[in-house]
Amino acid sequence: MAPLADLYQLTMAYGQWRAGRHRLPAAAELFFRRAPFQGGFALVAGVAEGLRSLRAFRFSATDVAYLRSVLPTTTEDAFFDYLATLDTSEVTVSAMPEGSVVFPRVPFLQVKGPLLVVQLLETTLLCLVSYASLVATNAARFRLLAGPDMKLMEIGLRRAQGPDGALSASKYSYIGGFDFTSNILAGKLFGIPVCGTIAHSFIMSFTSLEEVEPRELSPLAGGQPVDLPALAESWLGRVCELLQTPPEKAKRGELAAFVSYAIAFPKDFQGLLDTYCVKRSGLPNFCAVALALHQLGYKAIGVRLDSGDLAQQSKEVRKVFRACGAHFQVPWFETIPIAVSNDISEQSLEEFSRELVEVNSSPCLKLTEDEEKMTIPGTKTIYRLYDADGHPFMDLMALEEEPSPSVGQELVVHVLGQLGEASTVIPITVERLHQTYFRNGQVCEPLPSLLEVRNHAQVSLSQLHPAHHQLYKPQPYPVAVTEKLHRLLAELQEAT
Amino acid sequence: MAPLADLYQLTMAYGQWRAGRHRLPAAAELFFRRAPFQGGFALVAGVAEGLRSLRAFRFSATDVAYLRSVLPTTTEDAFFDYLATLDTSEVTVSAMPEGSVVFPRVPFLQVKGPLLVVQLLETTLLCLVSYASLVATNAARFRLLAGPDMKLMEIGLRRAQGPDGALSASKYSYIGGFDFTSNILAGKLFGIPVCGTIAHSFIMSFTSLEEVEPRELSPLAGGQPVDLPALAESWLGRVCELLQTPPEKAKRGELAAFVSYAIAFPKDFQGLLDTYCVKRSGLPNFCAVALALHQLGYKAIGVRLDSGDLAQQSKEVRKVFRACGAHFQVPWFETIPIAVSNDISEQSLEEFSRELVEVNSSPCLKLTEDEEKMTIPGTKTIYRLYDADGHPFMDLMALEEEPSPSVGQELVVHVLGQLGEASTVIPITVERLHQTYFRNGQVCEPLPSLLEVRNHAQVSLSQLHPAHHQLYKPQPYPVAVTEKLHRLLAELQEAT
Repeated sequence: MAPLADLYQLTMAYGQWRAGRHRLPAAAELFFRRAPFQGGFALVAGVAEGLRSLRAFRFSATDVAYLRSVLPTTTEDAFFDYLATLDTSEVTVSAMPEGSVVFPRVPFLQVKGPLLVVQLLETTLLCLVSYASLVATNAARFRLLAGPDMKLMEIGLRRAQGPDGALSASKYSYIGGFDFTSNILAGKLFGIPVCGTIAHSFIMSFTSLEEVEPRELSPLAGGQPVDLPALAESWLGRVCELLQTPPEKAKRGELAAFVSYAIAFPKDFQGLLDTYCVKRSGLPNFCAVALALHQLGYKAIGVRLDSGDLAQQSKEVRKVFRACGAHFQVPWFETIPIAVSNDISEQSLEEFSRELVEVNSSPCLKLTEDEEKMTIPGTKTIYRLYDADGHPFMDLMALEEEPSPSVGQELVVHVLGQLGEASTVIPITVERLHQTYFRNGQVCEPLPSLLEVRNHAQVSLSQLHPAHHQLYKPQPYPVAVTEKLHRLLAELQEAT
Repeated sequence: MAPLADLYQLTMAYGQWRAGRHRLPAAAELFFRRAPFQGGFALVAGVAEGLRSLRAFRFSATDVAYLRSVLPTTTEDAFFDYLATLDTSEVTVSAMPEGSVVFPRVPFLQVKGPLLVVQLLETTLLCLVSYASLVATNAARFRLLAGPDMKLMEIGLRRAQGPDGALSASKYSYIGGFDFTSNILAGKLFGIPVCGTIAHSFIMSFTSLEEVEPRELSPLAGGQPVDLPALAESWLGRVCELLQTPPEKAKRGELAAFVSYAIAFPKDFQGLLDTYCVKRSGLPNFCAVALALHQLGYKAIGVRLDSGDLAQQSKEVRKVFRACGAHFQVPWFETIPIAVSNDISEQSLEEFSRELVEVNSSPCLKLTEDEEKMTIPGTKTIYRLYDADGHPFMDLMALEEEPSPSVGQELVVHVLGQLGEASTVIPITVERLHQTYFRNGQVCEPLPSLLEVRNHAQVSLSQLHPAHHQLYKPQPYPVAVTEKLHRLLAELQEAT
């Protein structure tokens, strides 16, 4: 995994090595400047993958030979020999547990180790953590929007950046709160529940009921098999009469596809309604097949809409289900699940940032005029402070050497964005957010399962005060620094 | 690779298998409805990867066991036995050569084979071809914008959907016309030229000239080594005087970083100007180091700007280089390359579409009211017709059994979007666009190298009339069907 880096990291590494600075103790932190999707929070994800990549970090002989061929010819040989010796045995990584809610400017992952190695790890970690966190955050936002009961399914395989991008999307959507993926490989590799029934192409591959083969289905309770195409056709007449739609507008190819699928999966029949006209074809055909199945003791599992105004159509479909349920005295018809797909997900991605914040134990600071953009210097410990209702009300950055804030004690802090003024808070609970996951080249803390991460994400989100997880224009969550860190910041500013 | 599919493709496969339709001859075509990025064309890419995935298509024993665990319990055992026997030995794939220009609605890849296998290949092919084509198209648009001489470099590793997405982006950007990637692994695996120098973090890791170590650099022509920090510091004074900027505003940490990097890579010194103030710090510091290097016989290779108004800043930097070049009599200073980065690429992606167009040799058609959205039925041969100037002026879809259009002969066609009217054209050259790449489970045509694909893309683009490759509001390129295909289309419409 070592060569998954940008070339400038190698040229800089050479600069550091040549200057004898390559083994200076250094720290790097990952955080983001703004919450993605115009929201107020993100979910931490990709930590486990990042840690695994650290464990595998090493330049092979062919890697070194390749680098020798692309770095300037003035590069000294001994540098390449040195590269071949690198590993992560002196690297320590702490992070918030995967699935944690994290706020802008709060470091959620920290890497310590020799400068050269820490710097070489930058791109790999960013690559593995940024996308993962964005996908998980996106999924969490959909979960918040959908409420706890609606089922959410990820179907991004064909739009992803190749197979791996797709697998990551499945994994991190699940962590963020989705229920299913369509991706079989993701199901197999990660144990994520998979889901899926039929596509338009299946429906289009039929043109008439004559093509249905086999044609018979036995009742669930047993007994004589029935000719399902004929039964469905007869139900279609009754449904069209009730709905006052012309039976000839209901495509028989679509009916044939539904019947064929229902015979294959009598307990799992779902209709895709929008291959042709939903109102005059998809919906009557579905109802006909579902009522035929009902007559044999089976229950259809739902319908799917994949184009047009999904909300409006869902309402109309529900109305029809109610009408059919009442008229034909099939109560379960009224609550048939309606699934919708097509362009529901995907908002534009925003970038995560990361700054190299400490070199040689003397904090450094990227200065800009804008306070908002300032990097908080030094190696920090991050605390989350909770109020009496169990809601977190502030994340607090302290210098590593400072003692932990005390529960029930007044605490002087400086909130970012209003650094000039001190304020006081009294936390009822104090949580230290980072855990050390990697030490001496090894993952040193058991990594949670995907399901554990998923649960942690939901708990972490549920603790938030609703004002902070509003999807748009959320109330900014206060992030503060201690008095001591604030003074350090002020000194650094004056010195520059 | 087989299980890289959506679950509904397996449930549909079962439906087909159960109906005895699984071995019907079928054809699927990949095309896109609109050109991405609001343009008029796309580049075909990802074909080689798609073909490789076909070769590897097979359900392993564990794949089958997994599918058994997720498909409905009513699924017959014999279906799973059948899955284990599947391969692509009966599949044929034809496609436009990778790197070809392709227009909306024109199929660029065609898969023929047994219905069930063709349908299972859908997601994998879409996943491998869509993203690749989008990236290549995006790169080609940048190349058109940049002209043939400007160098373009891809630096997307840290923003990609994980390592594989990043590698694909490097590869297909190169195909589309980029010159370099920052991604070392992409360089190593694909032979793409790599590029890169320093990041802000490197500059921020220095605070004063005392930290520079080693300090000496020998002149290029040989002779006594010189203390470069001291020499650069003295040049800084002269530069600041010329530019009328206060020398104390030029950060000495930045100067130290530049000097340190210049000592490491005296023939490859590039300055990153925007860590602090470009005008008062980055630019004077760079000029000082570059002039010091010049005194020793070395030439700096350029500067990079990574924030702010890049165009405006580039102009100002160029002005300063001209002033320094004239004042200090260093002519090459006036033409120092200026590189810019930061949010230059990335417009939102649009989706490629694909339809299953032929089953059992009887063409089928997805009907919508909108002519624009109609799928062109039947297995087709695609021709590109050229005018006397060597510009392609029309892509023509014909039924497979029709003879090739004759050069210099009048031809009756129906242009999509105006299907009602026939028009006549006389092609001066006729090119058959598809080649058969895959047959009997094997790639049957030598696949071009990355560089060959890249060259083909540029040739393909250069043949286009400029009106068709305008980046916005391009003149739509005419896509037509033959008289015979037009009649078939009309019959199908009447029949429904």
